[in-house]
Amino acid sequence: MDFKEKVKEAFQIAQQKICKALEEVDGKSHFSVEEWSHIEGGGGITRVIQRGNVLEKGGVNFSAVEGKIPGFMKSQVNADADLFFATGISIVIHPESPMIPIIHMNVRYFQTDAGDSWFGGGIDLTPIYIVDEQAKFFHSELKRTCDQFDIEYYPRFKNWADDYFFNEHRNETRGIGGIFYDYIKPDESISQEQLLQFAIALTDTFVDVYVPIVQENRNKPFTPSHKEWQLIRRGRYVEFNLVYDRGTKFGLETKGRIESILMSLPEFASWKYQHLVEVGSDEEYTLSKLKKGIDWLN
Amino acid sequence: MDFKEKVKEAFQIAQQKICKALEEVDGKSHFSVEEWSHIEGGGGITRVIQRGNVLEKGGVNFSAVEGKIPGFMKSQVNADADLFFATGISIVIHPESPMIPIIHMNVRYFQTDAGDSWFGGGIDLTPIYIVDEQAKFFHSELKRTCDQFDIEYYPRFKNWADDYFFNEHRNETRGIGGIFYDYIKPDESISQEQLLQFAIALTDTFVDVYVPIVQENRNKPFTPSHKEWQLIRRGRYVEFNLVYDRGTKFGLETKGRIESILMSLPEFASWKYQHLVEVGSDEEYTLSKLKKGIDWLN
Repeated sequence: MDFKEKVKEAFQIAQQKICKALEEVDGKSHFSVEEWSHIEGGGGITRVIQRGNVLEKGGVNFSAVEGKIPGFMKSQVNADADLFFATGISIVIHPESPMIPIIHMNVRYFQTDAGDSWFGGGIDLTPIYIVDEQAKFFHSELKRTCDQFDIEYYPRFKNWADDYFFNEHRNETRGIGGIFYDYIKPDESISQEQLLQFAIALTDTFVDVYVPIVQENRNKPFTPSHKEWQLIRRGRYVEFNLVYDRGTKFGLETKGRIESILMSLPEFASWKYQHLVEVGSDEEYTLSKLKKGIDWLN
Repeated sequence: MDFKEKVKEAFQIAQQKICKALEEVDGKSHFSVEEWSHIEGGGGITRVIQRGNVLEKGGVNFSAVEGKIPGFMKSQVNADADLFFATGISIVIHPESPMIPIIHMNVRYFQTDAGDSWFGGGIDLTPIYIVDEQAKFFHSELKRTCDQFDIEYYPRFKNWADDYFFNEHRNETRGIGGIFYDYIKPDESISQEQLLQFAIALTDTFVDVYVPIVQENRNKPFTPSHKEWQLIRRGRYVEFNLVYDRGTKFGLETKGRIESILMSLPEFASWKYQHLVEVGSDEEYTLSKLKKGIDWLN
């Protein structure tokens, strides 16, 4: 089988597995299934869950599209390249409870008609209220998966996530980060096949970290003021996705399916002018940790 | 007096006049006043109203800042230009009632240290529910003001607004448009002084059109389903401001005061996956009119 077909198949299987795990943890709602075609070639399967017991809005999107390389990517590919093929899974989950973090995961494979090909991806967690023990658990699990492939991956990709998942205009990270990587090509130390296995391992890790985090927080009580803070933090999430996110930008510029691209936005978000947090509050503690370079493991 | 000082003074007076008129129509809340300094020079006065009788969140921002010309503007100015001075008023009003349209207005003056200078601005209306008669009134008043300066302005600037206030990725206009103009320099037909008068005339027109529109709609009853539609339309407004709006982009790239730049975002917004409107509904009617090239006058 063609390598790109193999990646597509592996990603589709991973999509099904993830949706099944999320439906089980939610216990009420099910993922819809919409198959769609891309204007220039290929298409995808968008799966969205809404108004669950736990998951207010979440999407697990698979796509495998082709087309002309958009202008803003030209500098990153072989000068002879004209057409791209891209396949990936992209997930954003917005739980109803402010005690459960927002999570994002993406793995993707990209190739051009001039022979370039690479993998990219990432997972990052956006707690509305940061709990140090949970942050440590999340990062430890990411490190464990990375270490199975290359012990340089976790420190390198953790720093990359700090830089990438960053609202420059707010001077704050979107959450506690995680890992992010892009343009990773096979070399003497890792094969293309192993890069695919790494991507699939991350989809397993996604389930392995998020299900326990949901379970640990789902029964915690919350008040309207916790909810208010959640909507404000979701507003920052919207800012990141619309201003900086490369996947969103790529989708908009390549005329992707808009409902699939913007499934990442929450059902409700809020912006208050000059919102201030109280000294000594949990909100202030969370804000104090939205910084680059924090070592969550120790 | 230096021309730029004259523009600043006129804009500050206009800011006070507009806030007074909006406070009167609201009848409850008052505008806060925050003076701030820009990192490279100058500053501004941000005035925000929140939780009024009518106005849920609105900002009337005055600024007069200077600094290094950001990279994305380099192609638009004299090659020798290195520093800019920019002053303007920027307004976005989000009423609580879905029966009252969102409105935006901006007038601005820009000059560089290489002798470039120009005016820009615009007003556009974003009804949650389009009412043809009100759209006609709004556009007629804009035309009347434009015609006093140049009879080419309204048709030219109306088309410019259709192109500018457009969510490309949604293939829909943000609302019923209005006027938009940029890089307008004095020439044989209009002086710099008259361009300033045009900008000030627009600030008067803003009050003259919005106050009657608020009064006409403020007592109309609405249901939770009207409110739901409003939050979705506000989501589109957020998309425009974060993805396309030049003022927002300029503010973010020149390290402006973030709370002043993003005061344009509503207190609450919503995104639903694949939201559909009912055939024959008012929501469907509004969607059918979110297109370029509509002649609202006839």
